[in-house]
Amino acid sequence: MSKIKKIGVMTSGGDSPGMNAAIRSVVRTCAFYKIECAGIYRGYQGMIEGDFISLDARSVKGIINKGGTFLKSARSNEFRTKEGRQKAYDALIAANIDALVVIGGDGTFTGALIFNQEFNFPVMGIPGTIDNDITGTSHTLGYDTTLNTVVDVIDKIRDTASSHNRLFFVEVMGRDVGHIALNAGVGAGAEEILIPEEDLGLDRLLESLKRSKESGKSSSIVVVAEGDKIGKNVFELKDYVEENLPEYEVRVSVLGHMQRGGSPSCFDRVLASRMGVKAVESLLEGQSNLMVGLLNEKMSVTPLDKAIKGQSKINKELIRVSDIMST
Amino acid sequence: MSKIKKIGVMTSGGDSPGMNAAIRSVVRTCAFYKIECAGIYRGYQGMIEGDFISLDARSVKGIINKGGTFLKSARSNEFRTKEGRQKAYDALIAANIDALVVIGGDGTFTGALIFNQEFNFPVMGIPGTIDNDITGTSHTLGYDTTLNTVVDVIDKIRDTASSHNRLFFVEVMGRDVGHIALNAGVGAGAEEILIPEEDLGLDRLLESLKRSKESGKSSSIVVVAEGDKIGKNVFELKDYVEENLPEYEVRVSVLGHMQRGGSPSCFDRVLASRMGVKAVESLLEGQSNLMVGLLNEKMSVTPLDKAIKGQSKINKELIRVSDIMST
Amino acid sequence: MSKIKKIGVMTSGGDSPGMNAAIRSVVRTCAFYKIECAGIYRGYQGMIEGDFISLDARSVKGIINKGGTFLKSARSNEFRTKEGRQKAYDALIAANIDALVVIGGDGTFTGALIFNQEFNFPVMGIPGTIDNDITGTSHTLGYDTTLNTVVDVIDKIRDTASSHNRLFFVEVMGRDVGHIALNAGVGAGAEEILIPEEDLGLDRLLESLKRSKESGKSSSIVVVAEGDKIGKNVFELKDYVEENLPEYEVRVSVLGHMQRGGSPSCFDRVLASRMGVKAVESLLEGQSNLMVGLLNEKMSVTPLDKAIKGQSKINKELIRVSDIMST
Amino acid sequence: MSKIKKIGVMTSGGDSPGMNAAIRSVVRTCAFYKIECAGIYRGYQGMIEGDFISLDARSVKGIINKGGTFLKSARSNEFRTKEGRQKAYDALIAANIDALVVIGGDGTFTGALIFNQEFNFPVMGIPGTIDNDITGTSHTLGYDTTLNTVVDVIDKIRDTASSHNRLFFVEVMGRDVGHIALNAGVGAGAEEILIPEEDLGLDRLLESLKRSKESGKSSSIVVVAEGDKIGKNVFELKDYVEENLPEYEVRVSVLGHMQRGGSPSCFDRVLASRMGVKAVESLLEGQSNLMVGLLNEKMSVTPLDKAIKGQSKINKELIRVSDIMST
Repeated sequence: MSKIKKIGVMTSGGDSPGMNAAIRSVVRTCAFYKIECAGIYRGYQGMIEGDFISLDARSVKGIINKGGTFLKSARSNEFRTKEGRQKAYDALIAANIDALVVIGGDGTFTGALIFNQEFNFPVMGIPGTIDNDITGTSHTLGYDTTLNTVVDVIDKIRDTASSHNRLFFVEVMGRDVGHIALNAGVGAGAEEILIPEEDLGLDRLLESLKRSKESGKSSSIVVVAEGDKIGKNVFELKDYVEENLPEYEVRVSVLGHMQRGGSPSCFDRVLASRMGVKAVESLLEGQSNLMVGLLNEKMSVTPLDKAIKGQSKINKELIRVSDIMST
Repeated sequence: MSKIKKIGVMTSGGDSPGMNAAIRSVVRTCAFYKIECAGIYRGYQGMIEGDFISLDARSVKGIINKGGTFLKSARSNEFRTKEGRQKAYDALIAANIDALVVIGGDGTFTGALIFNQEFNFPVMGIPGTIDNDITGTSHTLGYDTTLNTVVDVIDKIRDTASSHNRLFFVEVMGRDVGHIALNAGVGAGAEEILIPEEDLGLDRLLESLKRSKESGKSSSIVVVAEGDKIGKNVFELKDYVEENLPEYEVRVSVLGHMQRGGSPSCFDRVLASRMGVKAVESLLEGQSNLMVGLLNEKMSVTPLDKAIKGQSKINKELIRVSDIMST
Repeated sequence: MSKIKKIGVMTSGGDSPGMNAAIRSVVRTCAFYKIECAGIYRGYQGMIEGDFISLDARSVKGIINKGGTFLKSARSNEFRTKEGRQKAYDALIAANIDALVVIGGDGTFTGALIFNQEFNFPVMGIPGTIDNDITGTSHTLGYDTTLNTVVDVIDKIRDTASSHNRLFFVEVMGRDVGHIALNAGVGAGAEEILIPEEDLGLDRLLESLKRSKESGKSSSIVVVAEGDKIGKNVFELKDYVEENLPEYEVRVSVLGHMQRGGSPSCFDRVLASRMGVKAVESLLEGQSNLMVGLLNEKMSVTPLDKAIKGQSKINKELIRVSDIMST
Repeated sequence: MSKIKKIGVMTSGGDSPGMNAAIRSVVRTCAFYKIECAGIYRGYQGMIEGDFISLDARSVKGIINKGGTFLKSARSNEFRTKEGRQKAYDALIAANIDALVVIGGDGTFTGALIFNQEFNFPVMGIPGTIDNDITGTSHTLGYDTTLNTVVDVIDKIRDTASSHNRLFFVEVMGRDVGHIALNAGVGAGAEEILIPEEDLGLDRLLESLKRSKESGKSSSIVVVAEGDKIGKNVFELKDYVEENLPEYEVRVSVLGHMQRGGSPSCFDRVLASRMGVKAVESLLEGQSNLMVGLLNEKMSVTPLDKAIKGQSKINKELIRVSDIMST
């Protein structure tokens, strides 16, 4: 039987919708199993500073539908040092916390893994990031909400694009991975989608836009991931296209941070609830160094080091669907 | 090689968000493969009446984000007769349509199967129903959107519930299956969820509500599927609870048809796009009598007769999560 | 110069979106003028029980966009008695509260007026109700948000109505006044609108629906205020129409309490902010027994007794517009 | 009696939500009075090219809730020449159009006025622009919707701002007028609002941000109109603040074109419906060269030349409210 009596929960890295729902789930699962739960403010930095708050089932009411994270998030350079991590360990021990649930992405998990190796402290990870770039789960927390936010905004942009027969380049998040761009692009009916995983090539882009114009399309949306393979940012793309296709009037929209916010979708709320239960129960069963995830529609766990090293792959079938849709 | 030259597409049964996106996908995939496509109005009834419209890539622009189905849906008693189906067949032949994609649920697929057996006419099914009650796909078209609609509305109801310390019974769709109630209930943070698959029992409901009150919860939401096992409708539940727990002020909200409408979520738009491609490509490969579906995150096909006879199962793990969350 | 040192603020009656924003404004205006502010929980009942909380500028952060009222609302039979009001007065005096801002509707203002007359206690009213049935302001707090909620829902219902060529009766709030029904009805493009102020007559309704069908309209929405003049509720209307116009397939949707919830619109947030400032400044100027309001786009005040006795009038021009729109 | 038999309607200039609803209203009012109506595509350019479409009551169904303008909008250099306007006149005469309703802003009305003076052609204007910068109406079409869009997005940005204790500069539309910035800023609870009408001064901005930090505010939103008086764009402001207040981590978000799109609010739909009726009825009464508007909650008309020359004034009271709210 587990000897865990008090679990600490924190959010770290970029915030994502569903983090509050995940915290709530961790807290309520602790209450269900009659163990204590402490919230750790501002990620690893708050851990070092002992910035904790005692949380019971009532303290997390009314947050399942709130964006962001009420425990806040922060970067911590101090946690990258041995001394910082020692301070964090001491603070946890002083507060009688004997296991951790960390909610975040790659960087968060790397920190947790090192911390576990140094202090043999039980840790479980919950993947919370809008980028969906973690191996070991089909969906990270917040990803589904972000997709809905992005298609909503592009729907609005299309209203004005089609009123004026314009071409829009819309930049969405995704420095290394194109999941948001590809899915939201298909969802919003984008004519072209530029992602880091594929080199469409400028020539093909021009050709596609030219064909689009000829086929009678009056307006076009091109969705561009921040880290698109073409290597031009949206403003350079605008200039390039206007130079080469003067028949187009081009506009740019950079969606930016709004993509991180908003009330989580039902999917993200349910996923957060399931993940929180699984994380706490895994700790209580004596497990550690795992990330909970959704695989084949079921809750599952993946070793943290695998989750970190793994590479999320772009859905090739969906690229093909995208091509067919912009016929 | 396929000899299919013209595919007919129709929607039938209750409408669901994403149906327009699926029609668009079927039409554009036909355009991509340079075959013709005809829209069939009002389901099997329009098929009988030869109410067709020629559709090309441009005719489906601007519909990916629209709720409902522009091809409309209808019941057809005539199609239940041999004579009706013969008329439908004659109309298809007269219009040179040589294969069908039908978008709908159980009843739609049953009709398609009989039609295929009688006339050896190639048919493919796309599961479009908000209830998610079809075997062979983890998600039916529209289900994800409906969940978001329902949690949005319950979020609003909770605003007023918690302002007045009230108990609300919220009835959601689901005569035979509790997927909407269970998932939206967890997503909305409902205190109890009553579904057709489980007999919670009136005693446990009362006890749970009593405990809730004692634990300091000031307001409560109980989500009830139309076909809950307890066998009382929401208004009877209200009376029963008010009689037995006079400390509660109870209100009822029946969400009704709004659950079917609205702009589809990104998930449903992407799913619709993938399913349309898969359905057309399956026909072109010479397949028939299959339903396309999402299984383990991948496009797959299931024999129509299996899809019809199968039983969608409630997620037991999620019932447990729901119990833990209402701690 | 005013001798007011501490203002109490409370919400009472049915909650409406924007109440939190109004509380925030009252609190911040007090902070701006360096006087204290106390929140009174659960309206007059909390006043009697001395259920107060000290509020400063920081305690109301993050609530401008939240529906409902965090101070909660409740009915109080005790406040209808002289003894109850005496208790309330004693509690206020004990807490050094020397003036009141009450946010609510008719009933709330009546209570405030009596309280002022008995104890000469300074009171100011802010009209917070979704019904827009208060004289002395063109808009009550929450009304604009509710209109947006209602048209959003009817937009969804129309998706399914037009997919199936159905007629929907949609019941919206408004027992004595038809403002919500008339405005949301015009905004949602309803074919007919039944309100308490006008007797359309059943014959005209039938005739209009018949004409609608003949003119090729495939689906229809009829918006019905709870207190429509025809005197039939939506379910009776459904039966009546189905009996007399069998060509129609009729459905009913009762929107209910969701109309009260949701994040306030920008208009309601701005209005709440303006009203809170005006209410506090009026008290500080030594005024009392007034309701703040928006008249001709400007902040103004109306004696509370006029606001109570007044009758809000339906916009006849808009009834005419509605008729023309359903041509 | 009027001899007008056919009215042309067009949209011109930047599109705004509610334009479709206004077109619908013009069309239906024509139908009501049994006169013909023609839609003119792409504003004055389409008028020159005779790009017209006959519109009856049924052709505008289902558009009241759609953003953008289905008649499209465009700039026309040709219409700035005498020859261009002559062509336009000839095209109108050839199509038997004998009066115009133009929906747009300043530029649109200027064109209409010149056209009327040259050809004595009856014209009425409907103010459609998100900027609310037209004299003679308290609200232009689309303004209310844009405010809701902007506060929605800033709500999302605040989720991530407060999760990370960051300062955000959010740029909203408004080159010459600060209505959007001021109202959406108050509605979103912005700490500071920079508008073209007021020179807040960089020093005061820094001081206010410093005070904000000291008073314990963990995150801040500063809303900046495109044409803010300070004369720095949002990126320059970010650099300036980061240099002078290194304790702040600053982010920038430029909302851009999404502000123009989206389904119109109930207010804008109702306003559009009222304005369309008023515009057509004014023409039928023999009036011309007027803009319809909402003044003191009532439909009214203003001479087009006054509307053009007038200056919309910022609401000084609201600036004061904004200051008090950021206490």
